[in-house]
Amino acid sequence: MTVASEFEVANQQYVATFDKADLPMPPGRKVFVLTCMDARLDPAKFLGLEEGHAHVYRNAGGRAAEALRSLIISQQALGTEEVVVIHHTDCGMLLIHEEEFRNTVKKNTGEDVSHVAFLTIQDLQKSVKTDVELLRKNAAIKDVPISGYIFDVKTGKINKVNV
Amino acid sequence: MTVASEFEVANQQYVATFDKADLPMPPGRKVFVLTCMDARLDPAKFLGLEEGHAHVYRNAGGRAAEALRSLIISQQALGTEEVVVIHHTDCGMLLIHEEEFRNTVKKNTGEDVSHVAFLTIQDLQKSVKTDVELLRKNAAIKDVPISGYIFDVKTGKINKVNV
Repeated sequence: MTVASEFEVANQQYVATFDKADLPMPPGRKVFVLTCMDARLDPAKFLGLEEGHAHVYRNAGGRAAEALRSLIISQQALGTEEVVVIHHTDCGMLLIHEEEFRNTVKKNTGEDVSHVAFLTIQDLQKSVKTDVELLRKNAAIKDVPISGYIFDVKTGKINKVNV
Repeated sequence: MTVASEFEVANQQYVATFDKADLPMPPGRKVFVLTCMDARLDPAKFLGLEEGHAHVYRNAGGRAAEALRSLIISQQALGTEEVVVIHHTDCGMLLIHEEEFRNTVKKNTGEDVSHVAFLTIQDLQKSVKTDVELLRKNAAIKDVPISGYIFDVKTGKINKVNV
């Protein structure tokens, strides 16, 4: 049994009580959240988001360098006016080292991924600052409020980073 | 008042009842969900996911071409063994046309983004198939079950695509 088939079953319950048919496409709270794909993070829950509120972009680490395409679309086509960057404690990206990980992938899959930047993280304060600054400096990104946080997987709290 | 400051207030409620301090880093259900950042989608809710269950990767459109780095990390460092690709009806990517959108960005920001592929979508059945095939054919991606769905924003239902 695949997880996909379990998803189909679980989805039936969501459909049974679904009452969000008339939400507009643009995010109601005009915000773009950039965070990590980590399984322990449920941004809707820990930020108090409901369907229709926010763009929630997630990748490994919550790295901004890979989010530019999506953020440009969010701002230019769907009217968001604020960005919130959220990295988190105990992130897998803290455990991976670029060169070593490329070797692992090569060993396990036979593929040369030396052209891929895995955007690993050494320090969370720095990674949040780096990503906020990257967005602030990119001329294709609007001059909007951009804030940075670290989500603590041990407490569920988002702690602000001065950026 | 920024949305970020509203998030800080909402987050206090999450922290007050937080009981997920001991979840391991690898996703318990060993699945990688690839879907869109659209505000109307709450994948945890419509798939029955709880904290700790799954990697949830989201970008504009839920496009696979941009998810390779994160999926390689998910599979090689955190042990996921299945991928579920979910695009959705009324996606903003259906309204954007590459060339026209590049011109809009140039006009609004002054920036030349002619090097950016915005990964727009013309047909949802095709985009899901394209993305599932892209992952199946990429040698750096493990040979695991990969399924495709279209989430219907009018009903909350995930409809399977034969891929």
